[in-house]
Parts: sequence; structure tokens; C-alpha cells
Amino acid sequence: MIAKKWSAMTVEIISVGTEILLGNIVNTNAAYLSEKCAGLGLSCYYQDVVGDNEERLFETIKLALSRADILLLSGGLGPTQDDLTKEVAAKAFGKELYLHEETKEAIRKFFEERGLEITDNNWKQAMVPEGCIVMENPNGTAPGIIMAQDNKHVVLMPGPPNEMVPMFETSVMPYLSRLQSCVIYSQTVKICGVGESKAESMVSDLIAAQTNPTIATYAKTGEVHLRVTARAEDEKEARKLVKPMIKDLKGRFGNHVYTTDDEVTLEKAVVDLLAANKLTACTVESCTGGMLSARLINVPGVSEVFKTGYVTYSNKSKRRLLGIKKNILLKHGAVSEQIAREMAKTAAMLAKTDVCVSTTGIAGPDGGTPEKPVGLVYIGCNVRGKITVKECHFSGSRSKIRESTVSAALSLMRQCILEYYSEVTFGGKEK
Amino acid sequence: MIAKKWSAMTVEIISVGTEILLGNIVNTNAAYLSEKCAGLGLSCYYQDVVGDNEERLFETIKLALSRADILLLSGGLGPTQDDLTKEVAAKAFGKELYLHEETKEAIRKFFEERGLEITDNNWKQAMVPEGCIVMENPNGTAPGIIMAQDNKHVVLMPGPPNEMVPMFETSVMPYLSRLQSCVIYSQTVKICGVGESKAESMVSDLIAAQTNPTIATYAKTGEVHLRVTARAEDEKEARKLVKPMIKDLKGRFGNHVYTTDDEVTLEKAVVDLLAANKLTACTVESCTGGMLSARLINVPGVSEVFKTGYVTYSNKSKRRLLGIKKNILLKHGAVSEQIAREMAKTAAMLAKTDVCVSTTGIAGPDGGTPEKPVGLVYIGCNVRGKITVKECHFSGSRSKIRESTVSAALSLMRQCILEYYSEVTFGGKEK
Repeated sequence: MIAKKWSAMTVEIISVGTEILLGNIVNTNAAYLSEKCAGLGLSCYYQDVVGDNEERLFETIKLALSRADILLLSGGLGPTQDDLTKEVAAKAFGKELYLHEETKEAIRKFFEERGLEITDNNWKQAMVPEGCIVMENPNGTAPGIIMAQDNKHVVLMPGPPNEMVPMFETSVMPYLSRLQSCVIYSQTVKICGVGESKAESMVSDLIAAQTNPTIATYAKTGEVHLRVTARAEDEKEARKLVKPMIKDLKGRFGNHVYTTDDEVTLEKAVVDLLAANKLTACTVESCTGGMLSARLINVPGVSEVFKTGYVTYSNKSKRRLLGIKKNILLKHGAVSEQIAREMAKTAAMLAKTDVCVSTTGIAGPDGGTPEKPVGLVYIGCNVRGKITVKECHFSGSRSKIRESTVSAALSLMRQCILEYYSEVTFGGKEK
Repeated sequence: MIAKKWSAMTVEIISVGTEILLGNIVNTNAAYLSEKCAGLGLSCYYQDVVGDNEERLFETIKLALSRADILLLSGGLGPTQDDLTKEVAAKAFGKELYLHEETKEAIRKFFEERGLEITDNNWKQAMVPEGCIVMENPNGTAPGIIMAQDNKHVVLMPGPPNEMVPMFETSVMPYLSRLQSCVIYSQTVKICGVGESKAESMVSDLIAAQTNPTIATYAKTGEVHLRVTARAEDEKEARKLVKPMIKDLKGRFGNHVYTTDDEVTLEKAVVDLLAANKLTACTVESCTGGMLSARLINVPGVSEVFKTGYVTYSNKSKRRLLGIKKNILLKHGAVSEQIAREMAKTAAMLAKTDVCVSTTGIAGPDGGTPEKPVGLVYIGCNVRGKITVKECHFSGSRSKIRESTVSAALSLMRQCILEYYSEVTFGGKEK
């Protein structure tokens, strides 16, 4: 018998919760699950959102079962009477619920460890459908459920992302992988300092010719991610297919590739680069007002390299804190190549760090002029006295301009450090 | 004839785009439209996401027409062959498309103004269904469309949020308002410094007794929003119903109410409070690493009050930049009431500002101890020498703990400034 081809399997994502229908929360679960499914090579044709309503939820599940092989549901597994997902999904498969002793024990333990009192309705969460797979939930009291019947698979996960995401990664991904007649393996090449359309044009020949592996491009603020996905009989074979494509992409994008590790963010790549070269860093921000230091400090363990951040938003603080001369400010204006340079120079001296990045720009909505329009930003980077300043023109809202600036600043930091060392190694030292 | 009651009208939100199904973007449009519909008193029972596929889109529209009065679609109005929403929606209503001269002219102008060349496929966007209402799109080339037939209303909007949101507010909201046999009016009471469950318990009697107006609570990080919505024959009457409830809520939550204006954020309320009292401010951050200053600086015009931000992440920078004594750091540790106090004291002197807020805490995932666990945060606030320090215990991821800290810091700033002035007025001055 030929097993159903993985590539032909389809998934439907159903998010359950009245709070989503009220616009109270943004449905990030659906985006997360969709991205993961795409990575697994599953085709998703529909996402649905439905409230905690028995009839409408039942109809939604029935419809999804008629058009998809795998249903991924999140939400509606709580202890209240409103939470109906498990009951309705069991009904759609004609299954009864029974008390699952292990889950009951896990719930008891969860409450005990936190010194909380268990109320009677909590035991509702220990009821599971006959013949299902129960998935542990170390981050909450609702267990996950997988039901399978007639080649249809229904996966129930709790709604809170901090419970759903670990459960998906630990239990659902391996289950979905076992369904397939082949192995899917993907790896992402993350690029900075190259625009989306340029990146796409640089791989258009690969995309046009792609069969296995495939390449998908994802545009992020200031970054482009290229995901290479291969199908094969086993993982070793799939990795073998992915490897030359990764090598090809690395060759095309050179130093713009900051990682091929899914877990590494741009700020982590920068922090790692600083640490690897035993460099300390500081930031001095005007228009980004702390967003750049905040992003660096989101990397655990950053204290080894990041020392100080200055937010010199006013001209006065640029003068007082950094000692930038009034006449330079008056002559060139706070948003200028010269001030970005002065900021990067003086802050590095003040904080006694090897590297310093500065930002100054017009984030809007007001403050633009014909000469210096909203979106004009200068970013300075000082690596041991060698200062580079980049002029950027961003568009969008005040937040968008500031986010673009932060990404560009991280990108520039990386580039300047790499250049500094390549010069020292290849040009600066005598052989 | 009795017009159909507004409260009985239902809406279904359909987002069209393969990029959503790939998890490439998060569906913020659906959350935005849902929240707006809830505000208008419309009931939303389903949100759907479907790709740019003729057959599946047609089935989705047909199903939605069978179960909702109003369909709000976004996406799929672009100039390429993939963009099918208009064609498929017209087909569902049995309508032909024709060339809309005004739209053609608007597109021509849009390109001319930007010095861009028009390609032939752009004229596809000037084709509209017979008998429809065409909505202008000043931010793009795809016009919006409203079709109505047999008491069903189909609204087509472009996918990019910066085009969809203005179009919804300018053209779709008034259209939906005209459909109703009564007026819906709502106002939001925004509260800080009170937990979600406490806030809910403080209004549970009102919620239990609610008919018209209704109250809905929305929990945000560090904030709770209470939305009061009334239905009446005209706006004047609806406002009259809302007013006493707002007054009641203001009485219950007192100074914790920071605004009743939908447009005002917590950071804007703080900036306005500073400006109204002619106070200048600075920030000095450890665990939040610039997030607090970044949030304040997201308020346009903040330069009047915000002067300088310090990110003193390392102990060395706390000593060097702020001059905090080594023995105090050693004795109490960087995460302590004393250091939060020292930070708020020294940074205010250094930056010469009236107000200074400090943060120091353990954001995790590492660095926690039994005495000082992950999530322990101290926030200091200095208003003209009067320093208050608050100890907080937050939970969640590193980002979540840092976000909670920022909201709590803004809340504390507000509270300390209000207390400072009430003391000066009622206690500090002789009468």
C-alpha cells in the first residue's frame, strides 16, 4: 500500500475563543501554527475563529473534517462551563469522555505546588475522550488531546500561547512527523542589510527551478529569512539535500548572512559577535529612545558585553551628557551625519566601551522639513575609534520608522565589527 | 414595518491572503475589525482566513452569506492575477465588473504624484462590480467596494493595515452606522494600578445588572480598560445613558482612572501630566534596558518633558555613570529597594530633571535565587526629591516581565506626581 503522500496532507487551524471575536486579543496562535505547518510541508487552506458556542463550534469542526486531514484547535479547554472544545470535538467523533487518572494527579500536583486551592470545576479538565492520546501540559492544567479516526486527526491544545507553544513543540510536532511517509527538514538562512526585493531577485532563479528542496522568503523588519525545506525518506537524506542549497545561499549573500540557526535573532547574533571578540558596547539613542538598548538587553546573558545606554533625546542632553558643542548642533542640526558621528564618538569615551552605536532621526509624525523629511535617520557606529555613519530613509508610522532604525542599527553594528576585523587581519597587520 | 434590530445584526470577518495561511504575517486586521464591530454593537460569530484561491474563496463567501448579515473582507484587491476577491465577491452576487472612470483617474494620479510608471495590470484595480459603492483609498491604488443585495452587505477592503484602517474609519463605519435602527455610542474608562481580577470584582454588580449601557472589561499589560456602550435613538440620548455610568466608574476607581479618551495611552497620560505641571523627566533603567524611555518617546511632542535616559545595565555603569557606591551595591545587591532609590536619586541630579523613574529587577530566564526569584522588580520614582520605591513580583517570559515593569513604572510615575501635588496643595502649603 502506498501511504498517503505527506505533500498532499492538509491542515485546518481552528482558534476557539469569544475574546478573539471581540478583538480583545490578536490571534498569534494561528500565525504560529501556520508557520510551523508550512515548515513541516503541510498545506493550510483555512484558518477559522469561532466562539465558545456549542452549535457553531460543532459545525466548524464538521466542516473542517470534510475538507482537511488534520485539525489543529487551540482554546476552550479551561475549567469553566464555557469551555467546550473537548466535549464538542469528542461528539464530532462519537466518543464519550472518561476521567483520566494521570491527568487528575497532574492537576492536583499543579495546584499543590503553587499553594492554590482546587475547586470542583477543575476536575472537568481531567476528563478526556475514549481512545485519545493525552499530552502533558507542564505550564497549565489543561492537557492536550489527539484523536484519530478514519485518517482524520484532531489535535486539541490550550489557548494561552505559553502553554500551547511548548506543547506543540514537545508533543504535536513529533506526532505530525510520524504521520508522514517521508521526513521534512528545513533550515533558515537569515539575512540583514539587504532589502526584500533585492534578496528575492538574488534567488529568483533558485525559486523558479525549485523542486526539492524548496525556498521560501519571509520579510521581517530590516531582515529577510530564506527557508530551505527538503523532503526525503530519512532525516540524513533530507539534510543532504538542504546542505548544498544553504551553501549556495551563503555564497550569494556572503557577510549579510548572520545565522543559519532558527533560534538566533539578529540581536543575539550581534551580542555573540561582541562576546566572541571580547568587545564591550554601549548605545546612544535619540529617535529610537531606548528601543535599541532594550532589544540588545532582551538577549539573556548580555551583561557580559553591554554596559551602558544613553537616551539623549533633547539637544540639551546631547550637550550636557555627551559634551557635544552647541555650534555643531546649530550648524548641522541634531539629525545629521555629524551629530550621529559625535554621539558615537563621545558616548564610547564616556562609557569606556569598544563599540558604540548612535541613532538620530525624524520619526514623525511632525518635525519633518523638505530638506529633512520624516523618516530621515542617521546611524553611527564606532568600533575602537573607527566611525561609520549610515544615512537611511524609512517610511511608515512613528513606530515603524523607529523599529526599522533599530534593525538597521543592529545590522550596521555587525557589519562594522566584521569590517574592522577583516581590515585588521588582512590589511592592518604586516605579514 | 419594524426595522431589523441592530443588536440582531451579525458580521463575519474574512481575511484573504496566502501569506496569512503561511504564517508569514499575523492577522491584526481581524482583531482590529472585530474590536470595531464590538464597539458598534455588531455580533461577530466567525472570523475566516482563506488564500487567494477562486474556488475556496467563493465557498467561504457563500457560507458567510448564509450565516451573517454583513461580510467584511480584507485583502486580495491588488493588481496581480492572484488577486481575486473583487471578482469572486461579484460572482457571488451575480454582478459583472465595469471600468470605473473616477478610480482610473485616481490611480493615474497616484502613480503620477509618485513618479512611478503605470503597468497595464494596474487598470484591473479600476474595475468594480455593477451597482456597488466605491470607496476612495488615499493610501493605495485599490479602491474599497460595498455591495448590498437582499439585506446582505459585502464590504471589500485592501489588505495592508495602513490602507484598510483609514478606509474603515472614513467610509465603512459611517455606512455600518446608517444600517442601524439606533445609535451605538461607547466610551472607555482606562485604569492603571489595579489588577484585572480586582477591577472585575469592583464592577461585578454593574455587569450583573447591565442592560443599556453595557460594560465590557479588557485586560492589557498593567492596565484594565472598561468600555461602556449604550444604544439609543440618537447620539445625544446614547451619551446621556453613558454619562452616569462613566461617573460611577470614575468614583469607584478614583485616581486610578488615567483617561476616558480612547486615543490616550498610559504613556501619553504621563507625558501630559508632566507637561501640565511643567515637570521635566528622565529614566534610569536596568532590567527594562531602555523599554521605558522608548515607550515615553513614542508620544509625539515628548521632547518638551523628556530629557535623558540612562541604561545602567551593568554594576560598573551604575557605579561609574551614577556614582552609586560599591559597598551599597555589594551589601544590598543590584536588585534591591536601596539601589532603585539610589538610581532614582542620582540620575535626577545628573540629568537635572524634576522627575526620575528607575527600574531594577530579575527578568530571567536565569539569575534568580530563592531570595530574589525571577520576576522580582523594584521601581523607584523621584518627584523633586521625594522618592517612592515599589516592590513588584511579575511572572512570565523575560519579555513579559520587562513589559509588565514598564507599565508599572508608568503607573507609579503618575501616582507619585499626583500624590506630590495633592500633598503640596492639601498638606504642604499653609492656608
